[in-house]
Amino acid sequence: MLSRQLTKTMPHSRLILRRLSAKAAVKSDLSQRALGSKKTLRDVNACVLNAKYAVRGPIPLRAEELRQKLTDEPGSLPFNKIINANIGNPQQLDQKPLTFYRQVLSLMQNPSLIESLPTGELHKLFKPDAVERAKKMLKQVGGSVGAYSASQGVAGFRQSVAEFIEERDGEPASANDIFLTAGASSAVSNILTMFCTGSENGALIPIPQYPLYTATLALNDAHALPYYLDEASGWSMDTEQVEQVVKDAIRKGVRPTCLVVINPGNPTGAILSPEAIEKVLTVAAKYSLVVIADEVYQENGFDDADFVSMKKVLRVLQKTEPGRFDNVQLASLHSTSKGVSGECGQRGGYMELVGFSEEVKQVFLKLASISLCPVVTGQALVDLMVRPPKKGDASYEQDRQERNAIHNSLHQKSTLLYETFQSLEGVSCQKPQGAMYLFPKLDLSRKAIRKAESLGMAPDEYYCKELLEATGICTVPGSGFRQVPGTYHLRTTFLAPGTEWVDSWKTFHQKFVDEHRD
Amino acid sequence: MLSRQLTKTMPHSRLILRRLSAKAAVKSDLSQRALGSKKTLRDVNACVLNAKYAVRGPIPLRAEELRQKLTDEPGSLPFNKIINANIGNPQQLDQKPLTFYRQVLSLMQNPSLIESLPTGELHKLFKPDAVERAKKMLKQVGGSVGAYSASQGVAGFRQSVAEFIEERDGEPASANDIFLTAGASSAVSNILTMFCTGSENGALIPIPQYPLYTATLALNDAHALPYYLDEASGWSMDTEQVEQVVKDAIRKGVRPTCLVVINPGNPTGAILSPEAIEKVLTVAAKYSLVVIADEVYQENGFDDADFVSMKKVLRVLQKTEPGRFDNVQLASLHSTSKGVSGECGQRGGYMELVGFSEEVKQVFLKLASISLCPVVTGQALVDLMVRPPKKGDASYEQDRQERNAIHNSLHQKSTLLYETFQSLEGVSCQKPQGAMYLFPKLDLSRKAIRKAESLGMAPDEYYCKELLEATGICTVPGSGFRQVPGTYHLRTTFLAPGTEWVDSWKTFHQKFVDEHRD
Repeated sequence: MLSRQLTKTMPHSRLILRRLSAKAAVKSDLSQRALGSKKTLRDVNACVLNAKYAVRGPIPLRAEELRQKLTDEPGSLPFNKIINANIGNPQQLDQKPLTFYRQVLSLMQNPSLIESLPTGELHKLFKPDAVERAKKMLKQVGGSVGAYSASQGVAGFRQSVAEFIEERDGEPASANDIFLTAGASSAVSNILTMFCTGSENGALIPIPQYPLYTATLALNDAHALPYYLDEASGWSMDTEQVEQVVKDAIRKGVRPTCLVVINPGNPTGAILSPEAIEKVLTVAAKYSLVVIADEVYQENGFDDADFVSMKKVLRVLQKTEPGRFDNVQLASLHSTSKGVSGECGQRGGYMELVGFSEEVKQVFLKLASISLCPVVTGQALVDLMVRPPKKGDASYEQDRQERNAIHNSLHQKSTLLYETFQSLEGVSCQKPQGAMYLFPKLDLSRKAIRKAESLGMAPDEYYCKELLEATGICTVPGSGFRQVPGTYHLRTTFLAPGTEWVDSWKTFHQKFVDEHRD
Repeated sequence: MLSRQLTKTMPHSRLILRRLSAKAAVKSDLSQRALGSKKTLRDVNACVLNAKYAVRGPIPLRAEELRQKLTDEPGSLPFNKIINANIGNPQQLDQKPLTFYRQVLSLMQNPSLIESLPTGELHKLFKPDAVERAKKMLKQVGGSVGAYSASQGVAGFRQSVAEFIEERDGEPASANDIFLTAGASSAVSNILTMFCTGSENGALIPIPQYPLYTATLALNDAHALPYYLDEASGWSMDTEQVEQVVKDAIRKGVRPTCLVVINPGNPTGAILSPEAIEKVLTVAAKYSLVVIADEVYQENGFDDADFVSMKKVLRVLQKTEPGRFDNVQLASLHSTSKGVSGECGQRGGYMELVGFSEEVKQVFLKLASISLCPVVTGQALVDLMVRPPKKGDASYEQDRQERNAIHNSLHQKSTLLYETFQSLEGVSCQKPQGAMYLFPKLDLSRKAIRKAESLGMAPDEYYCKELLEATGICTVPGSGFRQVPGTYHLRTTFLAPGTEWVDSWKTFHQKFVDEHRD
């Protein structure tokens, strides 16, 4: 059955080669092993074994051990809590959820309050616009958040997303092109599964990158084709280099199918200018690369660095230079986990497909349907994110204040940490324009590098491990995101409250430098 | 990089064959195609194209079109609503959620009510035990459902699951072996990704089966190795046949790695006896098959047919016959979507791993971490499902009544539909013991079969299409679950309220039979 299906889609000779080699491997395997033994690592899909995911890797796992130790034996460590700066998880670090979101979601979970309470009582507990919104959204989901929705997501919520994109870009958008997703991770997995599976395919990914991309490519047995962001110029993209990576891949017999762009950048915090985006789209057009526009930090811009979406730039180019960009295909991702929402645990997100045929979208839909539907409350949160209270609504003033407070706090914390890194010996750091991270560069001494080697660790992993053991601050070594060989970095979020932890980092750093001086 | 990793895990000759053929394919592909063309179906991963998922296939898609038509032009069709009997989605069909669950979840979404309201006021709106439970669970998640949890799931909730399993089976269980999941689908995907990927591997699946299995195997480019359930004996398992399937696969060079057992059965509704489970485990032990025990319908048993878990039987066998079953590895799946919970849209579930080494469990954990964490409210719902209110708790009486009402209603509806099918000409149906479905057999006339063929449809697909167009009842053809060739079935849920739709089915059926008489 499967082999007949394969025959339709693969050249015959390739198929025969593949089947012959597989058959030989199974027979030799079965003859070598006794029947009846347990499955071990040897039996696990090599692609899974090869996948790496540093954000939840050895340093964070060690942090969990230390947290347990603090619970079991308080006072046994030189610090009294773990600061999880390894992952953008704002509400773990005391960021309060937006009141409006939570009022609506709690009514959607428990609509009997709306039915049973007199309006006056209800409005003492919930703002009137929250009640109305919950009623409307319950109707849109068919009455209960406990029912499966359409696999593409609730139609009314997708319509809200389309309207949000239209307002953001000043360009048309259609609910038919929107897929609601469980955060951005599942969207990335689906796009790469569609277009980048098997060792003949590859996707271009920025270095440093968010490790979701290399991990998913490893699972798909496809190639990660790295292009480097230029640290000295604020982590800018060098599209000539990108094009060179494409050419090199083709020469080696690897088909580049997708180009990942993270904007605002993770872990770099850099924001691409429209001119930079134009260059990216030029390469994508020339080589038919599906652009995966990871735009989950689009609300997280500071100062004058304005976020402009890939799609906006694409539409403008398509108008100004007719024909040249007609073939560009784009998947733009957004999420409720970041921005001022910070609702990571609720698993909401969306993907907008731009430039795909109806039949390809139908395949996306089939793929989505295999996991039935994204969590309905997460879908509702996407609707709330893209349609917050408007001026005049009962919740507006409070919502605006809460949003501003979060935004300002993120900005202050990023500035404090940035300035701290500027002041540390042997550390340099690009000024953050957005996102939730800093990615400082560590000029480590030869002594530190040798010490790391002797422990079987990457030099930046060694630094992060020492930082954790001394201060409880959990970060991710740059090696987990990849970096220019011979350079060392770490990624830290700037979400943790207070300034004490920053002071303890300073103290640690000076001690580390002194102890490892060449 | 990747090729170096591959070299470690694959025989060298296989690797070279594979790379040479892939390289040739890419070069020929790139030379044939102009640069700059859009990606089409031709560029989509063949495994995705080959995957089929009938539960959300052409009949349900047609039902959506008809629903839209009813909205746009009321009265334009011979019925006034669509009855979604294609998917086990109780709350879409007016099943009420359990009050206790929703009170706790709404407080977890909006803890400010707990903080701001005086206890007396709060207890007018929420039962005291619901308030206490919400407080406890908020503490367990670290304060907010909006924060990512550990990738394996919240430790406290996993502990509840372990205690539930201990009580159910009378055998020890450990929170370390529990993985919380987004429904059961993501667990199935992860297990098959671990152990059954690539055309040299296969998994045994029951026929008829839930199409998630064939779809996931198709995505993984692995073989579905079908074994048939025996309809005449109440869809029982014939383990001699299972063993024959294993042997045939090995002879063909396919390595059988997993054995899927759905108990209670979907779509069959049959429940396995402990003796039948013993036979299954015997085959699993002999051939080192990882047993995927899909036990999501474990609460849905009727009459005297008691559900006994695979793990319970395994532990008993391991005690009574020391050594013989020591190598058995089992993954048992459960979900909040079924049972009397019916909370499909909330995406809660768990997987218990039995018999796996610590290092293999660590790989499961890494795989889970790539999608960060399952939705936290869904995790909370798992905790609520496995630890409902106890006698003496304020919510107990109401909760018990609600559960009994749902259970009785499901039983009544299944009996009504079963008796209806018994009365229809050319239809036979096994008595349902559990789950949410009936899977009646249709003895279709040659005329009906020829008519279907002339329309390019499977005969049972034709019947389901005609049923939908005439009555608005949406079912899934047996061909979507696979069946013994030459037999025809359909799967219907018995969840829809009322009896009118059953009457309209009867009328349709007689007309269909009369019009297609040979």
